[in-house]
This record gives sequence, C-alpha cells and structure tokens, in this order.
Amino acid sequence: MKPIKLKINTKTQKYSIIIGSNLGVNISKILKENSIYFQKCLIIIDKNISQKFISKIKKSLNKKKIYIHFFKASETNKNFNSVNKIVNILLNKNFSREDCVISVGGGITGDISGFAASLFKRGLKFINIPTTLLSQVDSSIGGKTGVNTKFGKNLIGSFYQPNLVLSDIEFLKTLPKRELICGYGEILKHSLIANKSFYKFLDKNSYKILKLSSPFIEKAIYESCKIKKNVVEKDEKEKGLRKILNFGHTFAHAYEASLGYSKKLNHGEAVILGIQSALSFSLKNNLIKKHDYYSILKHISEVNLPSKIKKFFKIRDLNKILSFMIKDKKNNSDKINLVLLKKIGNPIINREYKKDDLAKFLKNELRN
Amino acid sequence: MKPIKLKINTKTQKYSIIIGSNLGVNISKILKENSIYFQKCLIIIDKNISQKFISKIKKSLNKKKIYIHFFKASETNKNFNSVNKIVNILLNKNFSREDCVISVGGGITGDISGFAASLFKRGLKFINIPTTLLSQVDSSIGGKTGVNTKFGKNLIGSFYQPNLVLSDIEFLKTLPKRELICGYGEILKHSLIANKSFYKFLDKNSYKILKLSSPFIEKAIYESCKIKKNVVEKDEKEKGLRKILNFGHTFAHAYEASLGYSKKLNHGEAVILGIQSALSFSLKNNLIKKHDYYSILKHISEVNLPSKIKKFFKIRDLNKILSFMIKDKKNNSDKINLVLLKKIGNPIINREYKKDDLAKFLKNELRN
Repeated sequence: MKPIKLKINTKTQKYSIIIGSNLGVNISKILKENSIYFQKCLIIIDKNISQKFISKIKKSLNKKKIYIHFFKASETNKNFNSVNKIVNILLNKNFSREDCVISVGGGITGDISGFAASLFKRGLKFINIPTTLLSQVDSSIGGKTGVNTKFGKNLIGSFYQPNLVLSDIEFLKTLPKRELICGYGEILKHSLIANKSFYKFLDKNSYKILKLSSPFIEKAIYESCKIKKNVVEKDEKEKGLRKILNFGHTFAHAYEASLGYSKKLNHGEAVILGIQSALSFSLKNNLIKKHDYYSILKHISEVNLPSKIKKFFKIRDLNKILSFMIKDKKNNSDKINLVLLKKIGNPIINREYKKDDLAKFLKNELRN
Repeated sequence: MKPIKLKINTKTQKYSIIIGSNLGVNISKILKENSIYFQKCLIIIDKNISQKFISKIKKSLNKKKIYIHFFKASETNKNFNSVNKIVNILLNKNFSREDCVISVGGGITGDISGFAASLFKRGLKFINIPTTLLSQVDSSIGGKTGVNTKFGKNLIGSFYQPNLVLSDIEFLKTLPKRELICGYGEILKHSLIANKSFYKFLDKNSYKILKLSSPFIEKAIYESCKIKKNVVEKDEKEKGLRKILNFGHTFAHAYEASLGYSKKLNHGEAVILGIQSALSFSLKNNLIKKHDYYSILKHISEVNLPSKIKKFFKIRDLNKILSFMIKDKKNNSDKINLVLLKKIGNPIINREYKKDDLAKFLKNELRN
C-alpha cells in the first residue's frame, strides 16, 4: 500500500504525517520530498527498538553526520534530567538551529525528544518516528511535549510542532497485544468525541484493526490522526476546543499517578478506564444518551479492553486519586473540570464539579 | 504625561506595552483595561527592587491571592535551577493555566520568569514589569526567554510572549548611570538597524534622554520598542529578518562569556563594544558608508559609551573569544554568521566568515 499523507497546518508550523510501511529505508527521499534539510542529526531511540532500524535509517541518511542516543523509556525516566542529557549532547556536538533531532520510540521518547528540541537554542528541527500505536494515533500529533514531576504527569513542557511525523506500521508488528490495546483506546476516544461513522467502522472492524490487517489499520490511524489534526489546527494551545481531546484523561492521569506510574497500569490502559469513568459519570449526571452509553460499553467488552477500576484500586485509594484530579492542568480553580459525553461524536467541555461530587461517584465505582 | 500604549501582534499572542510613570498603583485598572483576569499570581521580584513597589502593587491587586518570590538576579543565577525553584512554587501552590506570573526586575529576572511561565503546564499568564532601561527597550519585547549554560548565554529557552508589559519610568530614576548607558546601547542599536531619523533624534538629544527628561526618555523607549516590535511581528521565531536585532551581539556574547559574565563587563556594555566591533568589521570589509561609520563613532564617544575592547581583553584571550563566537546560536555551520551594517538604517544579515578572518580582525583590534 502506498503511504498516506496527512497535512497539518498550525499557526506555528506546517508539516506532514506519513503513514505507511518500511518508511525508514526511504527516509532520505521522504526528507527531500518534504523540503527538510539538515547537516547533523541526533537520533534519540528507545533502547527496545531493533538495531536493524538504526542500520536502515543510517544507510538512507548516509551523507549526514549522525549521532545516536539510546534512551530507556519509562514514566520514571520522563524527567528533566533525561531532557538535560539530550540538550548537553546537542551543546557538546555544537548543533545549530538548522540541525535536527529525530525521535524513534513511543510517546515518552517523543515527548522527551520534542521537549529537548524545543528548548535547545529555543528550537531546532524535529522529526518524530512514533513506534507504538498509541503514539502514532495520539501523542505524535499536536506538538505537546513535556516531562513528569512528583506532582503529576506532563506538568512541565512546551508546545512544539515537529517538522515531520513518520508512522510506520512495521513497528506495530513487534508490539505485544497489551500495547496495541492501549493505542486502540485513544482511537476509540477520537471516534467518541468527533465522528460517529468512524465509531461504527471501529465497532465493525476492531478485530481486523487489532490484527493489523491492511487497509484497516491504516484507516484507523489515518482517521484518528485526522480528528486530532482538526482539533489542534483550530486550538493549538488548548484555550478551548482542544480540551475535548482530554475526554477520560482527568480520570486517567489520576489513576496512573495514584499507582506511581507502575507497569500494573500503563497510560493507554488508564485512558481506557478513564473513558469509562467519564461515560459513567456522564450517565450519573443524565448527560449521555443511554443507547450510546450501552453501545460503547458493549464495544469495550467485545474488544476486551480493561474495564473495572476496582481491579486496580481499593476504597482507601480514593483520597489519593482525588488529590491528583484536583492538581490536573485543566483546572482553573479548586473545582474539577471534566470533559463529558452527550452522545457519540458530541462531547461537553468545561463542566466543573466539586471534589465531593467526584468522591461520591468514585466511591460508588470502587464498591460496585 | 499620559501613558503611551504600543500594541504587539505576533502569531501566537496579542499584547500591549504600556510606557508611563507610576503604573504600579494603577495595575488593577490597567489589567481590566487590557482584559487580563486571574485569581492567583506569583510576583517574581529582583531582590534589589524597593519594597515600596511591592506594597503599591499589593494594594492595587488587593482582591487577588498574591505570592512573592525574591530573586537574586545575576548571570550566574540565570540557570535552570532558578527556573525550577519558580516552577516548584507554582506546583506547590497549585497554580492553574489561568493564573499569572508577574516579573518585576531587569532582563535576567524577566527571562527567568518568562521561561518558567512558558514551561509550567505548557504556559500560564505572564506580565513583565521591566525595571531597567535595557529590559524596557529590548528584552521585554519579543518573547525570548531562557537561561545560560556553561557553553554560553541563553542556549536553553523558549519563545513565549507575555500578556502585558509595563515599562515604568520611575524605576529608571534609581538606576546608576552605568545601567542607563547599557540600555542606551540597545536604543542606539535599534536606530542603527532600522531608522535613520530616530538615530538623528538620539544624536541630538542623548543628554536629555540619559537625564531621563520627559518626553525625551519616553520617546526613546517608545521608538526603540516600535522598531523591535516591527521586526518581531514579521519574524517571531528568528527564521530570517529577526537576526538584524543581533547586530553586535555575536561579538557581545563572546565578550561577556570570555569574562565569565563578571561584573567588569555587563551585558549592555558588551553590546556597545560588540556594536563597535561589528561596525569596525563592516569597515574592514568595505561594507559600510565611511561617513556613517565616523558619525556613529563620534556619537559613541560624545555619549561616553565604553569603546575599547583592549581595556577588557589581552591578545591571550583571543582563542577564548573565538571559541564562544563559534558556539553562537545563530551559526548554521562551523562558520561565524554576522550581522553587519551598510549604512545607518540598513543592516546586512547572514554574512558568514571563517574563524581565521575573525582571528585576524580581533588580533588587530586588541593591538591598536
């Protein structure tokens, strides 16, 4: 299948997302086609990525000066220290603003690399090669970069758009099922907040998508990116509309933070749980169409997505979860700001609830 | 005199610079007039600023929750650690993106505060109250923020526009002459790269400006800001045109770095020396109109600006200076990229020279 190209046009940068197979061998040609020129590059690559990919990309970029930095991607390593290491390599190797940082890895690697690229001399070229389904359909689009702090996830960061995103299906074939499920969670989220017919496509084809069958997986990635693109183009800095992308995320961030970002619950799984909490909270507040609520729940159970928060938490975790929800970036006051759902394709933003309302709701969820 | 308002309109932010006297007492009114709303603010204030100003601003902002952070401004303290301290206060006090950071101090305080504001939750509101002539006419406009590293100045940072700039003449009355001279250097630079009639105004009125006589000082600040505004609006991220603002700065940064940012030579003085080096290099390369060159040199000597680099450096410092010039952010290769002058109001950008050319030139300057 020929690569698909999706053009993103934000206020600060125009760039393309290219979705296809085996893009690494052709990177030199792709760069030329997209008018991206540089002399030196630093490839920041997740330690788990096959060395073969490095050889491919090195061969294609043979006329450039290439430095490689191996990064051990984890939420714990997603800190300012890791960013500082990258910046120091760029300083030591005397990189200029016209040179390039290339990230090869999942969302964590991309966020760290993009953040370093944004800070170094106030910004050098940045190419993102997301290698997980989650990062291909979500974090690689829209220019959010950042690191975690002890207060929560991504509390320090920048908005920085890449010059190019290469989403290569080949990487997905090496991923464990659990990783694919995580990416699927964000794809589902995108359908729920923006596009009912895409939701129907997912509901019909989830099995083929998760088997990575062509052209289903490509279509799922493309449509998912397109939904995010439309939102990001209208509201790059999350002043309003972009908040809809956080559907389920206020819950999700609190869930993963409460478990100390442990491997028991990874980001994508937390998002799937968060989506269900947001749906359930929407129902409790009589906001969502019942038919849609039950359709989504049925879909989640058919695809075998993680579904019960009480599998991960006890009643005694309640205060911890709530304290993380209060600290969420989206809150403008001491109330908790949530994105909820009216019906499939139709979200509601800026609903504010008191801590007590959430406490009551979560207590109930943890009991049942 | 009524405050003067200059509107800045960049791709990412629209905001105003207000130039006047005693603005602190009216800050609440000014915020309302400029539609800036917040509940909490953190005032980051240079330790040397009079406590009276804090009382004034506190009184005017009496309905808001105010936190104060005293900052000991110095090039040595302009590091990531200082930024981290501010970010930690914002995290600890649970600031939201709708809250505000207010900087009260010179360029260093503004750069540190703006950088912290840009990173915290990827950006919260930011008001800059520059208290030195240098920061009023230069660093407070255009959104450059950043910190120094051992490799050089401002090598880590972001582009982040403030929501409002208040340039209060009152602060200038407490400044030592040396500080005013530094600000004057940037005013002169702005005239040289963009506006010959403004240069003539300076040449005629420099004495009154440096005595802070109204309306001369206001006009000097206003015109200077306007020149920078015009450049920044066209090229926010320094892709091309904005480079003209670096006239004299490649030399200047290397001079201050070579002295380890000591108090012997502060930033503004380094810029004045750098301007003269750039002029002299322009002359050596037959680029500048001789009449203009001598007119500027006469002006510099009349205003009593620092003028000889050999007062600060010996021949043995040459390699150090050159190594810092090579590391300058503006270089795209191993050549040194300079902004030079053709005639007053007419700069030349992207001239690249070999290290050897600069070595020869500087050796000569240090000898004569």
